[in-house]
Amino acid sequence: MSDYIKDKKIEDINIGIIGFGYIASCVYSLIREQRDYLAKKIKKNINIARIAEKDLKKIDSSSLAGLKDIKISSSASDVLQDESIDIVVELVGGIDPAYDYVHEALSSGKYVVTANKDLLANKGGDLFAAAEKNNVDLLFEASVGGGIPIIGPLKSSLASNNINEIIGIVNGTTNYILTRMEKDNLSFDEALKKAQELGYAEKSNPSSDIEGYDSACKLAILSSIAFNSRVTLKDVYKEGITGVSSDDIRNALDMGYRIKLLAIGIEENSEISVRVHPALIPADHILASIEDTFNAVYVYGNYVGEMMSYGRGAGDRPTASSVVGDIVKIARNFDRNKKGIIYGCSCFENKKFKSIDDTVSKFYILMDVVDKPGVLARIAEVFGKNSVSIESMVQKQRDKKKSAGLIFITHEVVNKNLSKSIKDISELDVVNEVLSVIRVEDLS
Amino acid sequence: MSDYIKDKKIEDINIGIIGFGYIASCVYSLIREQRDYLAKKIKKNINIARIAEKDLKKIDSSSLAGLKDIKISSSASDVLQDESIDIVVELVGGIDPAYDYVHEALSSGKYVVTANKDLLANKGGDLFAAAEKNNVDLLFEASVGGGIPIIGPLKSSLASNNINEIIGIVNGTTNYILTRMEKDNLSFDEALKKAQELGYAEKSNPSSDIEGYDSACKLAILSSIAFNSRVTLKDVYKEGITGVSSDDIRNALDMGYRIKLLAIGIEENSEISVRVHPALIPADHILASIEDTFNAVYVYGNYVGEMMSYGRGAGDRPTASSVVGDIVKIARNFDRNKKGIIYGCSCFENKKFKSIDDTVSKFYILMDVVDKPGVLARIAEVFGKNSVSIESMVQKQRDKKKSAGLIFITHEVVNKNLSKSIKDISELDVVNEVLSVIRVEDLS
Repeated sequence: MSDYIKDKKIEDINIGIIGFGYIASCVYSLIREQRDYLAKKIKKNINIARIAEKDLKKIDSSSLAGLKDIKISSSASDVLQDESIDIVVELVGGIDPAYDYVHEALSSGKYVVTANKDLLANKGGDLFAAAEKNNVDLLFEASVGGGIPIIGPLKSSLASNNINEIIGIVNGTTNYILTRMEKDNLSFDEALKKAQELGYAEKSNPSSDIEGYDSACKLAILSSIAFNSRVTLKDVYKEGITGVSSDDIRNALDMGYRIKLLAIGIEENSEISVRVHPALIPADHILASIEDTFNAVYVYGNYVGEMMSYGRGAGDRPTASSVVGDIVKIARNFDRNKKGIIYGCSCFENKKFKSIDDTVSKFYILMDVVDKPGVLARIAEVFGKNSVSIESMVQKQRDKKKSAGLIFITHEVVNKNLSKSIKDISELDVVNEVLSVIRVEDLS
Repeated sequence: MSDYIKDKKIEDINIGIIGFGYIASCVYSLIREQRDYLAKKIKKNINIARIAEKDLKKIDSSSLAGLKDIKISSSASDVLQDESIDIVVELVGGIDPAYDYVHEALSSGKYVVTANKDLLANKGGDLFAAAEKNNVDLLFEASVGGGIPIIGPLKSSLASNNINEIIGIVNGTTNYILTRMEKDNLSFDEALKKAQELGYAEKSNPSSDIEGYDSACKLAILSSIAFNSRVTLKDVYKEGITGVSSDDIRNALDMGYRIKLLAIGIEENSEISVRVHPALIPADHILASIEDTFNAVYVYGNYVGEMMSYGRGAGDRPTASSVVGDIVKIARNFDRNKKGIIYGCSCFENKKFKSIDDTVSKFYILMDVVDKPGVLARIAEVFGKNSVSIESMVQKQRDKKKSAGLIFITHEVVNKNLSKSIKDISELDVVNEVLSVIRVEDLS
């Protein structure tokens, strides 16, 4: 015990942790290691009072100091029904049974801190309503961007801004894969294998990351805050990076671009566009310098202008930093009798979504065509018929005999027109294959 | 009035603004423009009740809508003595009389929001003590990095971290000058002139920016929070960018570096090192991509790892965004009877400072020497005698006849040894001039 704690009588804030895996054991260690430090800062004792974990074998009390003094049980109810618990830290993950745990905690007037992106992206609306009804809050900084403070700034320092645009690189696995494909000249499969070896991608089923599901959850959470209107996972258009080839990355570099998996939320004329897809972005834009497993969230607000937060988007220590940061926000002015909302939900509007078909983008298109005169004219005719206008075209010799690679960059076109033109072009006898269609975001 | 405000009875939070210049009139406009929006978000009305401005001519009520309905006076006392004012926004700038205004406001139980870096870097300790004594808070997000949220994140989301290092590019004027010297191949004087023409640098006296004073104030503020120990302006070592030449920028680029004016705070073994100086940093580090008037603050914490916030470091709209962000933090859970501290001062330690003489750095040194055999041996001898070890040396032919340019990069050396060696080398008859001595920060 520090001198500070001996000298002054300070209040305990009692924490109950539900789910004791990789992140939770780091949250536990952090709070134990920094308890005196935090007590000096916030004049409260953060006290882990209970832990519930269905699989008791996960809790190895011999390896974590002090764990034997804490009430541990296999039933979440033991945490939820303990009236002395002020804050429930939900680290079970997934929607079921996490939803029930969080709902019950909020309904009984407990604050909740969670890192659970799936839960919030799917059922956030219900849970924030339960929090408001009970005059407590549900905080979730760790659900997006690991250790990067972005939810807090959007809710407080930037609160007066109309956010027009939010662009995230919010999945470290895919950013690592794309970075290594570029820097080490690897194929997608080779880079994925490397990510799996290093523990950045799941071995059995990496699809949540590489298909864009993880980014889409995070975008739903960020966009709900940015646009003051509930965005759920099903509202987000998503494309992963499995179709991005080494050729695409080389071609992009040659034209001054890098390829990143972006999570883009835009509000225009009270209509929200939310989409996750790979994109070519200018190599000199700051988002292009986000490499390997780093994450960044770029925001454009009508007063603040451009703003970006950058850091470690995953890992136990950065995530624990955000979880404990949320505990600190609640604990600092904690009043057990009065409770009160820290940030609250700001989805007071009900905005429409713009369909991906009606979205306007520039596109990069790589196709393999028969190498003979007149081919370009036939392709250009199809683009023209579909109102797709071309900004630039480059021909590249390909390996196969009698075939050529054509790279097009379009002007801004309506997505459905582009789709129609690609379908028609694929059917031309002079076109062997349309190899890649990737959006271009000039971020200007 | 919005429907929301008509439907529900929500509390007014009364703001008094002291000092009505460039920033304050934007704060006024922002609050007026976003009042309904904020009311929906935070369930409070932000109400500008009074404005005090010594020079009443500055207040052009014809140009700002609604201003004629607000109580305006030339005396700060009218704001300070109005018991209905909940939050005083101090935008007078400078230390005197701002110190008295802020102290009086806090002493009478009013919250204070300020953008005043000089005041906090010089007299912060006194003012935070007054705030704590009166159970209110003094918030200052706008004092560092304009619109970038960095004070809030350090105080809340990152609160559990021991911050080991904080590196800022916190002066837009100097960053603009260095960027333009590099990109447009300008001399320092040409780039300064351009910055002055564009309003980025003061015309009459740009020294506060280019001599590092502005960055040093901001570093004192950031370091006090990061290291939980009061750092004032006088504790900060500072060197400006007036000695950086086009040659230095070219040479740096050739070696894979860019030159930035850094504000560096490091804590090691409970000793604080705080220094502002230009430095060569690796061109592929994310801080090297901060260009023109943008600012960034890079933090290393023991849990979060590397984290960076980036954005517009100056200008009326970004600064107003942060000022109103602070108002929002106070207003959200405002309790007129109970008051309460939002973040509070965390300078609960009293750490020692490391002298710049004892600091260890790498150095870039450019000198003009007589072009004849044996010169290098004589210079190397002086370095050796002073325990300065050389990592690399490049010779460059210079314009003048019979003279050569030598570029040295040292290994890490104690600053006082480097200074002694430079003094001795300057006195060698084979050395025409030591042109530049700039630190190298590898940021690894």
